[in-house]
Amino acid sequence: MSSAPTRTPQRERSRATQARVLEATVDCLLERGWSGTTTTVVATRAGVSRGAQLHHYPTKSALVMAAVEHLAERRAAEIRTEAASLPAGPERLDRVIDMLATAFTGPLFVAALELWVAGRTDPELRDALVPLEARVGREMHRLTVELLGADERQPGVRETIQATLDLLRGLGVANLLSDDSARRTALLGTWKRQLAAILAAVPTTPSASTG
Amino acid sequence: MSSAPTRTPQRERSRATQARVLEATVDCLLERGWSGTTTTVVATRAGVSRGAQLHHYPTKSALVMAAVEHLAERRAAEIRTEAASLPAGPERLDRVIDMLATAFTGPLFVAALELWVAGRTDPELRDALVPLEARVGREMHRLTVELLGADERQPGVRETIQATLDLLRGLGVANLLSDDSARRTALLGTWKRQLAAILAAVPTTPSASTG
Repeated sequence: MSSAPTRTPQRERSRATQARVLEATVDCLLERGWSGTTTTVVATRAGVSRGAQLHHYPTKSALVMAAVEHLAERRAAEIRTEAASLPAGPERLDRVIDMLATAFTGPLFVAALELWVAGRTDPELRDALVPLEARVGREMHRLTVELLGADERQPGVRETIQATLDLLRGLGVANLLSDDSARRTALLGTWKRQLAAILAAVPTTPSASTG
Repeated sequence: MSSAPTRTPQRERSRATQARVLEATVDCLLERGWSGTTTTVVATRAGVSRGAQLHHYPTKSALVMAAVEHLAERRAAEIRTEAASLPAGPERLDRVIDMLATAFTGPLFVAALELWVAGRTDPELRDALVPLEARVGREMHRLTVELLGADERQPGVRETIQATLDLLRGLGVANLLSDDSARRTALLGTWKRQLAAILAAVPTTPSASTG
């Protein structure tokens, strides 16, 4: 009963179907949240048969995880593309933080947060999420270090980069229910200057003036 | 069996019922999340009649908001009590941050996060949450300034206190699905030193002296 190894049209259709299903899943998560997202709603929205969908993603967890992973990859690619046009010099740090702040208030962050919160009370989802989160977190950290040209061998730098990402996550949550952008901009303005000083100097006391 | 001098018993019973219902609501939120929390489950858990519960809290939103507010007040009182025994001197800042980090990984934070995420896709809940959140956020900011003895008239101090609370919120989310305490401790160790330097010195740029 195995389907014969047909050629590319079949495979391409399959890939297009998958992409459509994943986009519909993210849209559904954003619009209705985890509890309002069902495999049936997604299949309808994507215009695919329930059979086709279940073939690719047998459970809601599998479907939603794949969708968030798909979106994470797309976003990482976008960030890398955008990063390629960043200026060098002091302005660079500001632009990197702005780019990351945009990511942490965008659809990927919101969709991922839906999953994290649902995973807290759903052991199956949690077990699947933990390794995915660890991987995405490591990737994001590495990307940030690279974009900032930070030297993690200097004491405190690694923790400061982590703190920057945790701060951005906190700001993402603060932006969930209302537009927090004015407060965020002011706060990040201060943080950028502090971060620049830390990355440039790495003395934890602010008196050394060795350039 | 003891005897109260009557008159108030009715009112006291009512208050005791309310407290029991609110505690049951928080427990339910923590155990089952927003979508698994229903007024029926809470009434059963609290051992009160549906009628009595609906009398106090006519909707799920009203019930859950009251529960989170109740918990927020209890936590704030606990923090104030604990704060009264804090040492003066440099150790104080470390202890304040530790106290706050505990709050941001505890049950109040988790219950509130359930509400924030649910409120994103539930307009009625969101409209009720936004003012509550603003109030609790202001309170938390004021408490932090007071505990740290920070001088917000100094440039950058207000934003740095805000960033500390947003960082703690981000760390709370990072702790949702797995124990993040080792990473959090290391990160906060670095943050505490940077925060102490900023609060003590407040030069945000190493040279500018246009006040």
